[in-house]
Amino acid sequence: MMAKEKKKVEAITSMDEDFAKWYTDIVKKAELIEYTSIKGCMVIRPYGYAIWENIQKILDGMFKATGHENVCMPLFIPESLLQKEKDHVEGFAPEVAWVTMGGNEPLEDRLCVRPTSETLFCEHYANIIHSYRDLPKLYNQWVNVVRWEKTTRPFLRSREFLWQEGHTIHATAEEAVEETEHMLNIYADFCENALAMPVVKGKKTESDKFAGAVSTYAIEALMHDGKALQAGTSHYFGDGFAKAFGIEYTDKENKKVNPYQTSWGVTTRLIGAIIMTHGDNNGLVLPPAIAPIQAVIIPIAQHKEGVLDKAGELKERLLKSDIRVKLDDGENSPGWKFAEYEMKGVPVRVEIGPKDIENNQCVIVTRHNGEKTVVSLDNLETAVSEKLKEVHDGLYAKALENREKRTYSCKNIEEIINVLSEKGDGFVKAMWCGEEACEDEVKEKTGVGSRCIPFEQENISDACVCCGKPAKYMVCWGKAY
Amino acid sequence: MMAKEKKKVEAITSMDEDFAKWYTDIVKKAELIEYTSIKGCMVIRPYGYAIWENIQKILDGMFKATGHENVCMPLFIPESLLQKEKDHVEGFAPEVAWVTMGGNEPLEDRLCVRPTSETLFCEHYANIIHSYRDLPKLYNQWVNVVRWEKTTRPFLRSREFLWQEGHTIHATAEEAVEETEHMLNIYADFCENALAMPVVKGKKTESDKFAGAVSTYAIEALMHDGKALQAGTSHYFGDGFAKAFGIEYTDKENKKVNPYQTSWGVTTRLIGAIIMTHGDNNGLVLPPAIAPIQAVIIPIAQHKEGVLDKAGELKERLLKSDIRVKLDDGENSPGWKFAEYEMKGVPVRVEIGPKDIENNQCVIVTRHNGEKTVVSLDNLETAVSEKLKEVHDGLYAKALENREKRTYSCKNIEEIINVLSEKGDGFVKAMWCGEEACEDEVKEKTGVGSRCIPFEQENISDACVCCGKPAKYMVCWGKAY
Repeated sequence: MMAKEKKKVEAITSMDEDFAKWYTDIVKKAELIEYTSIKGCMVIRPYGYAIWENIQKILDGMFKATGHENVCMPLFIPESLLQKEKDHVEGFAPEVAWVTMGGNEPLEDRLCVRPTSETLFCEHYANIIHSYRDLPKLYNQWVNVVRWEKTTRPFLRSREFLWQEGHTIHATAEEAVEETEHMLNIYADFCENALAMPVVKGKKTESDKFAGAVSTYAIEALMHDGKALQAGTSHYFGDGFAKAFGIEYTDKENKKVNPYQTSWGVTTRLIGAIIMTHGDNNGLVLPPAIAPIQAVIIPIAQHKEGVLDKAGELKERLLKSDIRVKLDDGENSPGWKFAEYEMKGVPVRVEIGPKDIENNQCVIVTRHNGEKTVVSLDNLETAVSEKLKEVHDGLYAKALENREKRTYSCKNIEEIINVLSEKGDGFVKAMWCGEEACEDEVKEKTGVGSRCIPFEQENISDACVCCGKPAKYMVCWGKAY
Repeated sequence: MMAKEKKKVEAITSMDEDFAKWYTDIVKKAELIEYTSIKGCMVIRPYGYAIWENIQKILDGMFKATGHENVCMPLFIPESLLQKEKDHVEGFAPEVAWVTMGGNEPLEDRLCVRPTSETLFCEHYANIIHSYRDLPKLYNQWVNVVRWEKTTRPFLRSREFLWQEGHTIHATAEEAVEETEHMLNIYADFCENALAMPVVKGKKTESDKFAGAVSTYAIEALMHDGKALQAGTSHYFGDGFAKAFGIEYTDKENKKVNPYQTSWGVTTRLIGAIIMTHGDNNGLVLPPAIAPIQAVIIPIAQHKEGVLDKAGELKERLLKSDIRVKLDDGENSPGWKFAEYEMKGVPVRVEIGPKDIENNQCVIVTRHNGEKTVVSLDNLETAVSEKLKEVHDGLYAKALENREKRTYSCKNIEEIINVLSEKGDGFVKAMWCGEEACEDEVKEKTGVGSRCIPFEQENISDACVCCGKPAKYMVCWGKAY
């Protein structure tokens, strides 16, 4: 039994040895994805897709509760439409896939496979918005998009990915800015409450804005290896797109004016974030809110009379309490099963054997810390629910601890270089004058770039970390995924 | 009030005058879709997409309850992969969109935008299936697909559409055939129980099979105008794809053998079917199971004290009973609102005014027959639930009646021609010898083609409707959408 378990666990590269290899080992061995013959495009397998479905369900509920409606735009954007907003086309044209033939005929206006859908929403808004009574529109869509990336990694950077893109349009700039911030807060709440992943909320610098945006907000998370991952973005467009696409409405004073827009999105990249925030050397570790299986029941000595019946009974009880439960009554040994569900990151394991049944108890093991608790069967439902809550809280605390341990305050470039080489990658908090030249210089000299200007500002010093001139902001710097 | 209501209703073309125009009027005025600048690609608007979400939710539940798991395959298929199964590529190549450029680089192996995903599933199965223990795999995906159609109509035939495609793989032919039939039955149950739409279940003739299939089953529904609509298909592939793609597994006797496959799908076309099965000259009529709004509350004389409060109270009560309810307390007149929600096909309208409140009652109006019932507020929840059930049953009965009225049994070609010209389009039941030449001749002479060979066979006569030789099957013939 131990031998098999050992073998299974040894099959993953240790995260300390090779973090990148550890990551790809997990996505494959936990059966989240499988590669295909199309570079940068993957099969999302049932276990991986079930995680995405849970993410979708929770986020979609949050969007709808705040008045958003789902729509579906076309997959294709005519080249002439993409070109209407100058900054936007410049940002995206180099990385799009082009459809040039339909059936066996060449197309007159070639079509780009949507890398994002601002231009399509704008065309639609121009058609349906005429009066202030038509505003706001709070739309979202759950779709696939394509960006022709040169280097790709499962979930983190793939040529096709799944996401949601919210696109809203408002009568006033104030309302649109409020929406942009509101959606960033929804993302942050989701990451913390559903994914047990702490995030830094902030504003992107000018050089790091979305193509066509007035301002871009982002949530940034710190991965296990000290690298930063942008987990979600929310953009305020002002009336730039509206002007470029001729979206106008008649206001209450009967004047024609342009409305104001936003867009915001999170992607299947969140699955990569979950892996790199919570995973360990035994495999995946899933936050209970999005785990396809929240509790797995493993019968011990299942050939003995009554064991499988009792295990089945426990399963039914947990199902009735709305816990996503699986009973594995397959032929493999309990040890093999332990390793298997550890690899798959199932938050809670319930062991039940003949002795447990005699004592009207079961053993509950939590994935993130291996802690075993003997629990009376009378309290099964409550005990499992409490353990799930414990796992969530434990994961969040661990992730926050890692981030705090790896967040360094620095006053000059030497300090940045020293702390990173001493303590390893992490977030660097340091002041900035606001000049792009300094932003570039910091990155060039230290390897960390601006992740965001956090909403929660601190005064690390009065001078820019680079040029020493008066500082305007505290920036959160890091190496990005 | 009446004037506005009248105006709104007059805005749709009558279905008797121009059925095609009536259809497109409804999809636009009920705000299901909006056209785009890309031919054959549409925006599915919130109200239309909410119908699709309800369809997805119910069907997805049925798939999962029968052991199916969701996955997600890539959007693109390399040309070399598409070409592996000869019949399949012949069937689809003429109608695919080709990506030939990625970023600014021409692609070596051009990529087709998936028209269907058999080839991708096969590549994946070849990677993950090795032993009989790996079988069966019961997979499904909810995705968009593209077929470069020449003539397009919203929902019925569009260049991009949304669908689910189930793809399963089994150790034996028997198991795969059983799956094919099982999924057809699930589709039929869904159409009857959720969409209130009766269907004919049957097998397609050889000439009408899916490209690459051994046999194709379909459900066929009859629309208001007497034309047939294929509402779902289920294909049995034998081991043809497995052989072409090198999918092999080691069986219990340690021999390498090929597994057997199926695929099955329904699309956003079902929304077109709902419109043309239940709609009327006042607009859309939605079956309650998939209606985004099941009951709309319209306050009468809403400026009077207590009316809006009471209306709000009714809304909360219905929400608690899991009824999808909307309260329209907007500024438009009740008459305008009546017409608006009639256009949108909301199954049940609840009217509440000062006199109703005095008498502790409300008025319930059912969309499909305009029937008004005065109901005590004490029984509101039960009354609305019962009315929703009544609407479903009423819609089904009406659709079945239309189909029966328009189903004709014919013994020879003259009878077909006569009955169609006398009574209008419909289903023709007539015998067939099984020869493709006769199938073609019937279509050429009468305009109706084979829709399917119904599972429920009848003996209309002993001779083929065309050549007079001994008949093998009763075929259901019709003009197809």
